[in-house]
Amino acid sequence: MLAMKRKQYEKLLEPIEHELVAMARWAKTTGERICVLFEGRDTAGKGGTIKAISARINPRQCRVVALPKPSDVEQTQWYFQRYVPHLPAAGEIVLFDRSWYNRAGVEKVMGFASQDQVDKFLREVPTFEKLLVNDGIRLFKYWLSASQEAQEERFAERLEDPLKRWKLSPIDIKARTLYEEYSKARETMFAATHTDHAPWIVVDYNDQKHGRLTLMRDLLDRLPNFDVPHEDLDWPELGHAPLEEDFGKLRPIAPFPLED
Amino acid sequence: MLAMKRKQYEKLLEPIEHELVAMARWAKTTGERICVLFEGRDTAGKGGTIKAISARINPRQCRVVALPKPSDVEQTQWYFQRYVPHLPAAGEIVLFDRSWYNRAGVEKVMGFASQDQVDKFLREVPTFEKLLVNDGIRLFKYWLSASQEAQEERFAERLEDPLKRWKLSPIDIKARTLYEEYSKARETMFAATHTDHAPWIVVDYNDQKHGRLTLMRDLLDRLPNFDVPHEDLDWPELGHAPLEEDFGKLRPIAPFPLED
Amino acid sequence: MLAMKRKQYEKLLEPIEHELVAMARWAKTTGERICVLFEGRDTAGKGGTIKAISARINPRQCRVVALPKPSDVEQTQWYFQRYVPHLPAAGEIVLFDRSWYNRAGVEKVMGFASQDQVDKFLREVPTFEKLLVNDGIRLFKYWLSASQEAQEERFAERLEDPLKRWKLSPIDIKARTLYEEYSKARETMFAATHTDHAPWIVVDYNDQKHGRLTLMRDLLDRLPNFDVPHEDLDWPELGHAPLEEDFGKLRPIAPFPLED
Amino acid sequence: MLAMKRKQYEKLLEPIEHELVAMARWAKTTGERICVLFEGRDTAGKGGTIKAISARINPRQCRVVALPKPSDVEQTQWYFQRYVPHLPAAGEIVLFDRSWYNRAGVEKVMGFASQDQVDKFLREVPTFEKLLVNDGIRLFKYWLSASQEAQEERFAERLEDPLKRWKLSPIDIKARTLYEEYSKARETMFAATHTDHAPWIVVDYNDQKHGRLTLMRDLLDRLPNFDVPHEDLDWPELGHAPLEEDFGKLRPIAPFPLED
Repeated sequence: MLAMKRKQYEKLLEPIEHELVAMARWAKTTGERICVLFEGRDTAGKGGTIKAISARINPRQCRVVALPKPSDVEQTQWYFQRYVPHLPAAGEIVLFDRSWYNRAGVEKVMGFASQDQVDKFLREVPTFEKLLVNDGIRLFKYWLSASQEAQEERFAERLEDPLKRWKLSPIDIKARTLYEEYSKARETMFAATHTDHAPWIVVDYNDQKHGRLTLMRDLLDRLPNFDVPHEDLDWPELGHAPLEEDFGKLRPIAPFPLED
Repeated sequence: MLAMKRKQYEKLLEPIEHELVAMARWAKTTGERICVLFEGRDTAGKGGTIKAISARINPRQCRVVALPKPSDVEQTQWYFQRYVPHLPAAGEIVLFDRSWYNRAGVEKVMGFASQDQVDKFLREVPTFEKLLVNDGIRLFKYWLSASQEAQEERFAERLEDPLKRWKLSPIDIKARTLYEEYSKARETMFAATHTDHAPWIVVDYNDQKHGRLTLMRDLLDRLPNFDVPHEDLDWPELGHAPLEEDFGKLRPIAPFPLED
Repeated sequence: MLAMKRKQYEKLLEPIEHELVAMARWAKTTGERICVLFEGRDTAGKGGTIKAISARINPRQCRVVALPKPSDVEQTQWYFQRYVPHLPAAGEIVLFDRSWYNRAGVEKVMGFASQDQVDKFLREVPTFEKLLVNDGIRLFKYWLSASQEAQEERFAERLEDPLKRWKLSPIDIKARTLYEEYSKARETMFAATHTDHAPWIVVDYNDQKHGRLTLMRDLLDRLPNFDVPHEDLDWPELGHAPLEEDFGKLRPIAPFPLED
Repeated sequence: MLAMKRKQYEKLLEPIEHELVAMARWAKTTGERICVLFEGRDTAGKGGTIKAISARINPRQCRVVALPKPSDVEQTQWYFQRYVPHLPAAGEIVLFDRSWYNRAGVEKVMGFASQDQVDKFLREVPTFEKLLVNDGIRLFKYWLSASQEAQEERFAERLEDPLKRWKLSPIDIKARTLYEEYSKARETMFAATHTDHAPWIVVDYNDQKHGRLTLMRDLLDRLPNFDVPHEDLDWPELGHAPLEEDFGKLRPIAPFPLED
């Protein structure tokens, strides 16, 4: 498997970034609400994709939601209750790094939820999503796919690369032996929750850079024409020589030493 | 002003990223709470720095707080009330993209707060921060500096580059004519709020990449020894040939076409 | 119309209070979640009924939800979003003093919501409530009825009695001329939202005390057997003469002077 | 000890209720924020007093805050963090049924907090309260006192009266043997936190009705002149015979049967 080169990736990414920025402007201008769920294999590349999408958008407009495990009280509430406060308001783009589908994925496979809870979730989720879609929220659900070979490579990399080691937890040791169980859980999930109003979109992430481009392109293509002109800004000359910082009480600390 | 080249930046950044990751591991293991405020000139580089710090840390551990303007009800509450819910719990690293210091900066200079409100804020904020610090929260306050020349260059770039255009708002037109007023507001703020328990740290961001390295280096140096070993993981062989995705209901969408 | 006398009311209320307390014990022991919506005519008696129900229950278990009008941001969110965080967790009894049905009642009649918004709400609400009921939340919807004669009497009382004057607002002046419009809105609402899983229960509140007894009796009758014994408490003798307060720094303030 | 008779209590209460209502109108008109903490002996009468104060005030204006025990995450946050979101906005009256002082009372005496945590709390709380008071919040702290004889009587009543049995928990068995330890903890708390800006007010609750009158009278006397006229309402004649309910789909349920 030949990974895409960074140079090529950046070249292909650039026009997409322009569209992402235009899309954000459109959402802000029109008050559109966009909600994207990222699910998929461990190591597939959810986090990197979310970073790539949010990189160019105002953080006051684009929120990433990565919820911790539910508290004891939350576990007794309506299952969707802890997710609802994070849904987008007018103009917002919300990216869910994992979502309510935890119940049908990791919780099912690792046994954190009972079969009854999983079945109930699968029955209810299309209705919940229908309510959001009927309210006008644009909801997108991506499932990021990777072969076990790619997964093992990335696990190995995480084990060796100190920059990535935090991504590994004891739970992963068990999870990687359950590749097939995850496949089954996914198929059950698709069967129950791939609906007209909120379809799943599967993206091949065996090459992560290629996967990102595919996903972003797809997301943009699913939106209506988002060509909204820039707000006009009348930008006058400054009219005087630019000023320097005039420090009084405190001065900048010594800069990072550059090797020469 | 010669901007640092990307290659050089990435080379210098790498060891710092290793330390950021180690710092995050330390915070998680020990339950330390880290809270960093980013203030400074418009265009100085707050957003880019926050992205550079958070890039390598688990988004479930590192939260970016970029609050919208207060609601009508919030405006009548205790001034700090809307910030408090975002303070870090055990193990969390919270990065504030602007903060409660809005009142002494943009609100003061643009006239959104009365002089009384500003004075009151400046009197109270050291006490508020003392409470946090006494509680054990590690609080860091960075002020990012840039000359008006650098600022004008970046404004011009934002005006021309569609990827950056969203960063400009009508308020910036007015703000850029108030460079000196911002300087004065800053000095007043430093005089009132540069304390032993929560000192300001000024960083020169005339070169943004250099500024980032300086700030990250400084932040890491202010923390105690954060050398915490990785959790041991017993990582067995997979024990069988790696599996392929076995799609049933849905298959991956067509990949992004690569030019050849 | 002869109003029930307080003595008679209290005599009839007492056994009901015992049942309410037993019901709360049952909810706490079993983790049941109870959610009661109070809607109806202005002046019908929602507030008094809520006070009568909550009077005997632990305030840590029984929450009253009386939301203010939505903020600008909330107005752009999913319609149910601001209500969801208040839904009951295990063991909780939540009493909604007005609810999401505002949209079909006051907002419709007073023109605060467009006909489109009202229609959409009426289409969606049975689905929303079905999700809650399927999740196991026990949901009850009461509509408190009063003739215009009773309403006018109570408005007059509010106008004259300084203890009740705060209950009147300029909006009431308009609302009382719209008695029939409220009737029509109610019928439309019943037609769309009186479902098997979440039926409406209408209670005659022309006599408020009688109405309260009727509603509480009905609520209790709709619950399954809630006879859960008290937790056993082994309550030993104190074993010494009871102690007096031994004040040091501060002493009680002078008691309220009793006329003699 | 002769308890005040209900008739006498109600007679004395009535003028106080008029003042409470006037006070609420004043807060609403002027945007004043009122925050009252209720602490004191178990069984002293916190809950009943809170109910008596809130009974006559708009529940949209007067909030009762009775927090459950902190979650695991909350326990690692800044100690005051979970209380801050409940502080009053403009016009609000917030009644805390127990408060941040838990740490110096029950948590200290029952050993739920370490001595270090208690000491730290006692050092910090005057500063925290000063911030609120300086912000303009009107903060009142009441400590309700009762002799052990009164306490034992009320415990016995709770044990026997099924309506009050829920107020007893296993923790009370231990707490009642610690009457003196609570006294000591109270004195330590007063020594550290009875300040000019937020003084403690001790009220004798050996007779609960008398105690309530004393506390309410005191609270009202501590506020400035709150005489704000009613908003003028132009209340026209109805202009037609009052209408009856005209039920279509649903009719009122059978009224509660009155014994005759």
